[in-house]
Amino acid sequence: MLPKKLLAELRKKSHKTFLVSAHIHLEGDALGSELAMAGLLKALGKKVLVFNEDEAPNEYLFMPGIESIRHDLSRIDYDAAILVDCSDISRIGKIQKVLRKDKVLINIDHHISNTAFGDINWVEPDASCACEMVYSLFKALGVGIKKDDAICLYTGILADTGSFKYKTTTGQSHLIAADLLRQGIDVYDINRRIYESMSIATVKDLGKIIGSLEVTKDGKVAWLSMRNNLIRKNPTLADETDAIIHFARAIAGVEVALLFKETQANREVRINLRSTGTADVNKLAHVFGGGGHRMASGATVRGIFRDVVKKVVLEAAKRVL
Amino acid sequence: MLPKKLLAELRKKSHKTFLVSAHIHLEGDALGSELAMAGLLKALGKKVLVFNEDEAPNEYLFMPGIESIRHDLSRIDYDAAILVDCSDISRIGKIQKVLRKDKVLINIDHHISNTAFGDINWVEPDASCACEMVYSLFKALGVGIKKDDAICLYTGILADTGSFKYKTTTGQSHLIAADLLRQGIDVYDINRRIYESMSIATVKDLGKIIGSLEVTKDGKVAWLSMRNNLIRKNPTLADETDAIIHFARAIAGVEVALLFKETQANREVRINLRSTGTADVNKLAHVFGGGGHRMASGATVRGIFRDVVKKVVLEAAKRVL
Repeated sequence: MLPKKLLAELRKKSHKTFLVSAHIHLEGDALGSELAMAGLLKALGKKVLVFNEDEAPNEYLFMPGIESIRHDLSRIDYDAAILVDCSDISRIGKIQKVLRKDKVLINIDHHISNTAFGDINWVEPDASCACEMVYSLFKALGVGIKKDDAICLYTGILADTGSFKYKTTTGQSHLIAADLLRQGIDVYDINRRIYESMSIATVKDLGKIIGSLEVTKDGKVAWLSMRNNLIRKNPTLADETDAIIHFARAIAGVEVALLFKETQANREVRINLRSTGTADVNKLAHVFGGGGHRMASGATVRGIFRDVVKKVVLEAAKRVL
Repeated sequence: MLPKKLLAELRKKSHKTFLVSAHIHLEGDALGSELAMAGLLKALGKKVLVFNEDEAPNEYLFMPGIESIRHDLSRIDYDAAILVDCSDISRIGKIQKVLRKDKVLINIDHHISNTAFGDINWVEPDASCACEMVYSLFKALGVGIKKDDAICLYTGILADTGSFKYKTTTGQSHLIAADLLRQGIDVYDINRRIYESMSIATVKDLGKIIGSLEVTKDGKVAWLSMRNNLIRKNPTLADETDAIIHFARAIAGVEVALLFKETQANREVRINLRSTGTADVNKLAHVFGGGGHRMASGATVRGIFRDVVKKVVLEAAKRVL
């Protein structure tokens, strides 16, 4: 339930400047919810500073307001801070350095694992994404949604519902989408920019990575490998995680899909984990010091590529017996 | 506008048995709209016979009622016939043989090219799919939508909106989806059955086909080749047209994406054509004796594979200058 205290805090006259941030490894919902939050606050007459540690991935550069995101960590003044889509305060990375203990911290998130780190905490594990929550804020505050806000909110819903196909998708996700479309947003254009703007080299490399597909004998764990030589030649490949891991997920009978990225030759492996239903890849990622959601998670493991793959596949196979 | 005459015809006491059919080359909207239409008529106390020339593709076998579709062309009795999702009567193929001139023919379709071949014609070019129209019929007749109907209607919307991402997607598509979700349908399960149930061999072959990617110098026409040796070893590849052609579409700057399938070694090539926006691939397909929509079309050309590819790519390149 949306806390009344939160609405009061957003309206408070003495809060002239808001700092807004979201988690590192920016994706559609983090960007969408922080930029829509900025739009909402501006409509309330506030000054807004959006901060992120990371640069936004290329495919999201079309999002209105994205050019205003700051990355410098010079000392700044603000009256209240809002973190969206962050399960834990550590998830904002270096932005923690500009947070001040004497200022109110607002935590708006949909992760069930949220640690309630804020002075005000609004956590809705049933919301498909943080953008759904920011949408509710517009409605609760009676602020009209402009086309730019609608583009940001729609992008977040797309990202976290897997274009309305994951289990997270609810009737509410569709009702909100219907309302956002009323602002005249071009859904085809947004989808094309996010999912259909690869380079020729990336598509060719995708073919190679699909060629690396391996599956356990029982057919329940499938994995793909992206070696360091491929990533060095084409760093944008790292942005195509979902497009790539799709091919391990999309096999009948597979319960856990894995993508192994050799980020430093034989020294570090980034692992993306996806469940197709019953398996809990959040728990699986935890074994290797990572985390995320039940259906999608990540971990970074130090070690020789082949050894890491073997270790993680073995652990995954044990868990889907 | 839904003709009142149509509602009267569906309610008519003397119409005890309805024949229902849809176009050949069955896909999600044809199947969804004919099966939901059957559900609606049964709820009105009618007997329903659903006929198709083709067998349904494997990925749609989960659809409720699909087992009742008939393919035999023995003489049958019926009182009224309803064709859904057919732009022209020829599109039902051999089912034409069981149609009787002395019985009323109802035409329910969303193709702008519809030839108004029925005694009663209801054509809505603004509807994303025929399922959206059948949904309106449930509402207009005050018939409750059961879970089985909802699964069929949702499948049709998915198919014709490209999972809510094509230009055809409207707020109405999302509003209907929200209503259908109220029946407790499992959207993830439906999406997984249609789009994520490939075999390991198919995924591996996909990697190979992606490896065949070629692009014209100006980057506007991209094409993929599926040679006969691949298809012979794995005939289910032909069902993955959309998944495959996606990789030619999904390149930034590409305006026309083509997939060439060598269906008989060096004798016949099936071509799938996709536009990413402005190009009209219906017109392009017409040059080679095919057709379809502005954004998606197909053609079959006799000839040596390499020659056909060259000829079609050249024609496509001329049209996107």
